[in-house]
Amino acid sequence: MNKEEILALIIESSMDISKLKILLSDMNTVDIAEIFEELDREKIIQLFRILPKVIASDVFSYIDIDHQQTIIEALSDNEIGEIMNKLFVDDAVDFIEEMPANVVKRILQNVKAEKRKQINQILQYPDDSAGSIMTTEYIDLREDDKVREAFDTIRNIGLNKETIYNCYVMRRDRLLVGAISAKTLMLSRPQDRIGDIMDTNVVFAYTTDDREAIAEQFQKYALLAMPVVDKEQRLVGIITVDDIVDVIVEESTEDIEKMAALVPSEDTYLKTSIFQHAKNRFVWMLILMLSATITGTIISTFENGLTVLPILMSFIPMLMNTGGIAGSQSSTLIVRGMAVGEINLKDILLVVWKEIRVGMLCGLALGFVNFIRVYFMNNRDVKLCLTITMSLFCTILMAKTVGSILPIFAKRLKIDPAIMSAPLLTTIVDAVSLIIYFSIAKVVLGL
Amino acid sequence: MNKEEILALIIESSMDISKLKILLSDMNTVDIAEIFEELDREKIIQLFRILPKVIASDVFSYIDIDHQQTIIEALSDNEIGEIMNKLFVDDAVDFIEEMPANVVKRILQNVKAEKRKQINQILQYPDDSAGSIMTTEYIDLREDDKVREAFDTIRNIGLNKETIYNCYVMRRDRLLVGAISAKTLMLSRPQDRIGDIMDTNVVFAYTTDDREAIAEQFQKYALLAMPVVDKEQRLVGIITVDDIVDVIVEESTEDIEKMAALVPSEDTYLKTSIFQHAKNRFVWMLILMLSATITGTIISTFENGLTVLPILMSFIPMLMNTGGIAGSQSSTLIVRGMAVGEINLKDILLVVWKEIRVGMLCGLALGFVNFIRVYFMNNRDVKLCLTITMSLFCTILMAKTVGSILPIFAKRLKIDPAIMSAPLLTTIVDAVSLIIYFSIAKVVLGL
Repeated sequence: MNKEEILALIIESSMDISKLKILLSDMNTVDIAEIFEELDREKIIQLFRILPKVIASDVFSYIDIDHQQTIIEALSDNEIGEIMNKLFVDDAVDFIEEMPANVVKRILQNVKAEKRKQINQILQYPDDSAGSIMTTEYIDLREDDKVREAFDTIRNIGLNKETIYNCYVMRRDRLLVGAISAKTLMLSRPQDRIGDIMDTNVVFAYTTDDREAIAEQFQKYALLAMPVVDKEQRLVGIITVDDIVDVIVEESTEDIEKMAALVPSEDTYLKTSIFQHAKNRFVWMLILMLSATITGTIISTFENGLTVLPILMSFIPMLMNTGGIAGSQSSTLIVRGMAVGEINLKDILLVVWKEIRVGMLCGLALGFVNFIRVYFMNNRDVKLCLTITMSLFCTILMAKTVGSILPIFAKRLKIDPAIMSAPLLTTIVDAVSLIIYFSIAKVVLGL
Repeated sequence: MNKEEILALIIESSMDISKLKILLSDMNTVDIAEIFEELDREKIIQLFRILPKVIASDVFSYIDIDHQQTIIEALSDNEIGEIMNKLFVDDAVDFIEEMPANVVKRILQNVKAEKRKQINQILQYPDDSAGSIMTTEYIDLREDDKVREAFDTIRNIGLNKETIYNCYVMRRDRLLVGAISAKTLMLSRPQDRIGDIMDTNVVFAYTTDDREAIAEQFQKYALLAMPVVDKEQRLVGIITVDDIVDVIVEESTEDIEKMAALVPSEDTYLKTSIFQHAKNRFVWMLILMLSATITGTIISTFENGLTVLPILMSFIPMLMNTGGIAGSQSSTLIVRGMAVGEINLKDILLVVWKEIRVGMLCGLALGFVNFIRVYFMNNRDVKLCLTITMSLFCTILMAKTVGSILPIFAKRLKIDPAIMSAPLLTTIVDAVSLIIYFSIAKVVLGL
């Protein structure tokens, strides 16, 4: 039976509860969570209450935030405690961060003291830090443990740990000294000592490390999990690859939004209100609109020339657009290259020199096409052709150079290069391309 | 000792080989692979030959493609066979795909028949399909196996399987019937029957499925691995999350490049030649340049009006830029929303209606600022102010509407929405905003 059929049955209330329970216990918890999105308040609570106890908190962690709130508000203190105590700490924190103060208070009152301490600890770490995405549930072993004992530890407490495939070895003072995978454990003899077979070369993060840099490490070393330590190198948590997959998608979205002159949204497109949408877009639109005063002023100073030869006006959009696209192509490639770690600050000269040559090639090719087009569309006026073509060539070359320098410059000043991309680049390229155009027109056409 | 120090020692040849071997066997294989990038041909081969045998093929899989080729060309047939037989099939295929024909021939001649068959099988799947990123090494169990036997299987063949944490259960005819995680195995009793404890609700892919859709499934279900079946539902391979992390990063880069009017590059920025770079950028620049003929023509038809009131010219860049950014903000949000599965085709009306209201809000706010600016910068000319402000408002509204409709329209026509984004949108918004501007100017200013 698929999701839609089960959904229909729930909505029609046409199935007895014991049968529904059996159906649900066979389903993937992520799919069950999706059913909640289609139900009204009453049905949501009804369905949640009949979920088999063993999967309830797992399902809860996948339900979207609004419906999670609906459920929590309808549950008794006891029930809240039961759900929250079974939730992994990182999932609990993700949920609590979005709840209003009164709900948070009720949740924290009803969880076990140990869990409350862990939740409060993670809540303290800044957004985007390793600490904020880690979980405090992991398997820790001692160097003197035998493989046999490690398996016992895993069997005893494994069910409540987010991953049992990467175990971490620490000293009595919690100092991280090694890691061992379940694979190594399974392929070792029961009597082997953990300290002898563990990997001492562990890739780890500090709680304050940036989550984007950690995602790069996951990709580079093909990791499933990474331990997180405090500044004294004591183990405090782990980050698992499923959270890193989310980080990578979110960070890419943020970069894409910044490059399109948007303030990144906290929420999904559909859930963001129109006022928030307008606010996220207003800032950069305003800056761009006002900075266009510069372009306007440049055009005004050349008003006489344009009145004498009005045809010159009609090429302005072409020059500005081609320049704009040339610049944004370069800056996009470089911003992305830096984001994924392919381009570093030391490559600055290499990159700019590359862009200059690419600009010359593109400028020559486009200039050639442009010359022919203008020649035949404008009464074979060679001087006009030369003016437009030379301006186009110089504009493309300039745009590619500026487009490559700006992001690198931003990175060096520790500004996010993605933000530089759209607005500042557009303003500079527009203004300079007009100056180039009018200067060449003055000389060639003698205006 | 860190990477740089080891590198220095290798370059100076100032260390005896047995000591170097010990150092290397303590290092992470990814870090060893990075050392190769800094060495010349002679040192590369020298270093590769002294790598401990057990890690040589693992290190090889992380070395970049150019240096892999250098190594393979220098090795004997025997050595090639040794390396390739130990390489996981998916890594072998990634490498072979980039090699020239003579190298491929030599490699395939020297691998075991079984491996050759598997490599040839994966090479057949189209790029971007599930088949092309899967590996054929996985643990397969039978329903009648006991947990005890499963552990024996893992211990016997686990070292050569890419993951042992997800095992797949198939019938004698290779039909996939279930999955079982190493966690479940470890938490079960040795005498439990696999068929009784396995998960029958398996998220799987067909060999022909698109890799981007599979990445979404990995994210949704927080998977570590996914089985791949042929059209008869027979198990043929698995995909692991480390490859999916690469897919997500690559697909985001591709989308970003398309949105910036670039033909996505096969290679990294620095490795792409300047001719290839110019080629990747030329197409869309040419299209944009030629489509600006439309804008040029529209300006020409209004030449008289512009000559009478030249100040109108100076607002053209402002209108076009603000319209351009308004449109690209909308299309970017919607293209990305569709790429990550947040916006579906059924949301079309919701999205367009949302964008219209956001456009009105932004248009009102920017119109207000603009009115004041134009009023005080242009001798308190109210008619001029009205013309510019009304044009701005209509342009923003139009740009947001077009920016939201275009990507959805593209998706419906099964064109990649990311491609629509930059060039077509710019052309439409530029042309329509000029028509709006000149129409309003004619009416309000009576030109």
